[in-house]
Amino acid sequence: MGLIVQKYGGTSVGNVDGMRRVAERLLATKRAGHEVVAVVSAMAGVTDNLIKLAREISAQPTEREMDALLATGEQGASALIAMAVNAIGGKAVSLSGAAAGIVTDGVHTKAKISHISPRQINELLAEDYIVVVAGFQGQSREGAITTLGRGGSDLTAIALAAALKADDCQIFTDVDGVHTCDPRVVPDASKIDEIAHDELLEMAGAGSKVMQSRAVEFAKKFGVGFEVRSSMKDVPGTRATAEAPNMEDVVVRAVSLERNQAKVTICGVPDRPGCAGRIFSVISAANVSVDMIAQSASTTGTTDLSFTLHKDEFAIAEKLLAPLVSEIGAAAMTATTGVAKLSVVGIGMRSHAGVASRLFACLGEAGVNIQLISTSEIKIAVVVDEAELDRAAQVTHAAFGLATPRSSAQP
Amino acid sequence: MGLIVQKYGGTSVGNVDGMRRVAERLLATKRAGHEVVAVVSAMAGVTDNLIKLAREISAQPTEREMDALLATGEQGASALIAMAVNAIGGKAVSLSGAAAGIVTDGVHTKAKISHISPRQINELLAEDYIVVVAGFQGQSREGAITTLGRGGSDLTAIALAAALKADDCQIFTDVDGVHTCDPRVVPDASKIDEIAHDELLEMAGAGSKVMQSRAVEFAKKFGVGFEVRSSMKDVPGTRATAEAPNMEDVVVRAVSLERNQAKVTICGVPDRPGCAGRIFSVISAANVSVDMIAQSASTTGTTDLSFTLHKDEFAIAEKLLAPLVSEIGAAAMTATTGVAKLSVVGIGMRSHAGVASRLFACLGEAGVNIQLISTSEIKIAVVVDEAELDRAAQVTHAAFGLATPRSSAQP
Repeated sequence: MGLIVQKYGGTSVGNVDGMRRVAERLLATKRAGHEVVAVVSAMAGVTDNLIKLAREISAQPTEREMDALLATGEQGASALIAMAVNAIGGKAVSLSGAAAGIVTDGVHTKAKISHISPRQINELLAEDYIVVVAGFQGQSREGAITTLGRGGSDLTAIALAAALKADDCQIFTDVDGVHTCDPRVVPDASKIDEIAHDELLEMAGAGSKVMQSRAVEFAKKFGVGFEVRSSMKDVPGTRATAEAPNMEDVVVRAVSLERNQAKVTICGVPDRPGCAGRIFSVISAANVSVDMIAQSASTTGTTDLSFTLHKDEFAIAEKLLAPLVSEIGAAAMTATTGVAKLSVVGIGMRSHAGVASRLFACLGEAGVNIQLISTSEIKIAVVVDEAELDRAAQVTHAAFGLATPRSSAQP
Repeated sequence: MGLIVQKYGGTSVGNVDGMRRVAERLLATKRAGHEVVAVVSAMAGVTDNLIKLAREISAQPTEREMDALLATGEQGASALIAMAVNAIGGKAVSLSGAAAGIVTDGVHTKAKISHISPRQINELLAEDYIVVVAGFQGQSREGAITTLGRGGSDLTAIALAAALKADDCQIFTDVDGVHTCDPRVVPDASKIDEIAHDELLEMAGAGSKVMQSRAVEFAKKFGVGFEVRSSMKDVPGTRATAEAPNMEDVVVRAVSLERNQAKVTICGVPDRPGCAGRIFSVISAANVSVDMIAQSASTTGTTDLSFTLHKDEFAIAEKLLAPLVSEIGAAAMTATTGVAKLSVVGIGMRSHAGVASRLFACLGEAGVNIQLISTSEIKIAVVVDEAELDRAAQVTHAAFGLATPRSSAQP
């Protein structure tokens, strides 16, 4: 018994059958004695169609109008879900983001939530309604419709759970939770029962496409526990929490993979202040996102500087940097696509030594060459040849015992 | 120079080319020195698709949610039109009905406008924007999205013109104005240059599908002059005004036609109080709309009572009335479909005699039998065999000289 926020993505509400299933689940949750707030995305495909229409109208659609246009997708879906609940004997109303009291800054297409005034939601809950809120959107103080950017509906759900002091927040998706690795690559990847916000954040940054980082960051900031679970099956998913004491027993929680990377190495960079700054300011001025950066220690007065980026941005980076090599007095530049990133993530790393050595050893035994290494407090990432990524994932997953129940498999 | 409200229907904004044309016209109007407020309907087909989706979800969708769903159609179209204006160098913003300050009662799917607070529109106009308002919708005092029912976008335009004290209101459609008769029936039907609100109202009630009665009633009530004109051609349309002094020079303004009617006659109804009431209370209890009603004078202690209704409601009316005939002591009932209504409309009738005789004479000469007659102050309607309607329309149109310029052809 308590207040539960449930979020359903575009695939879950993608057709009439899906919407009926969502309605049934909402009503079942209500009938189990809970207060229920639903957050829904636009029906799958609707947003893409609206974007296509806007681009036909204008090569560069006004962002304010783009928001007003795209917000209609979630508004329509929330009305349909409320109808579907009412059709099976429930009592539901839909609210746009604005009506739900979600106030944002005025930055169109990527607005930030300033605060939430959940007065109307609370009134409707008190009148025994299931409240269906359109995800992904809010309203600026000036009254303009704003949208929250990619993954915005997850953020709506987490933020509402925080504002309403919900007892639980459930993120329904087309997978049944967060896995120890991509099951298409590692067939014995298993569902993770419990994960820390920080781990989920690192995984999102490392290529695991479960939830957008912004929503997880918000959950972390406001201490919102939530569960990622399947909208198709009624089985427990993955619970994300601030951090449970026994979480550190697990050294590595998951292996994340990111393909389509490129690697640039500038050799013989003079070891003097300003060289690295010069290189990356040129790149960031072109809005190219750099991921991993590694610099070898200087012993001869020069260093080698390597970094990775998405292969789609490789051509522009290469073109910008080529003239710079001689300008800063570096020796040469090598640049290559066809690489990928493998990361092991786990908050247990903080207190357990030997993770790096075990990772490097298992990759070495498998004959996988490590091209670049980067670490954070709870993550070790390596760059390998993309052709070797699947094998690398499989041996790493096995080496850290992720397939079997984790409590018994950890050292 | 002044403030102009322009309304564009679903066909005008039905595709990208149409939306570009609308944007060009808005910008041209603005550049001619006017302040411009646009009111737009949903893209043709969008509303029907949403209704279809809702009916798949629920046999009887919640009206509140239906409004929230359907309102997205106009919201999307208004955002796209604003984008299209901006794409060609103009400066436009879209507003939902709620944001435009349109406050309605809480009667979902057929809300009435309570008042309009045009503060935000005025501010945006002062900042030199073209303001594009989503038609057909408003917001109740409780904050729920409401819609205004069929033809609601026309009403939005007229109501905004009144609230903003606009200098003109232009209703753009796919025809180039109001005609003296349906040009598919009477090929030499001509466009009417000026018409009185009352005439347009009678025509709408008599089957001419130019504008919904509610919008015209609102225009009449608040003295809003408007022009019905083509969105495809830049030619003057039909001006509707309260009433110009010289309007009465024209005896008959137009011939309106309505097909698919049915006629019921109950013969030998005892001429005592309560019989007619009994008949029509049975019918209205079943939500059947009756159009014309005629009762012959009583000479023998009984009367004959006839009325017309839409043929789709014929079966239910017949079923309800059959047992009633003997109950009230009437002689018999005859009921037939395959009839149609022809009406001549014109405020000049008030001061000119002889309209009825001329109408009946021309129909008689053409061998068209008149089955029922009903009159109002500015209209005479007759029921004829549906198979004879076209011919009846042609001879009537000719008899009142409507094809040729009207000033010279009138008696």
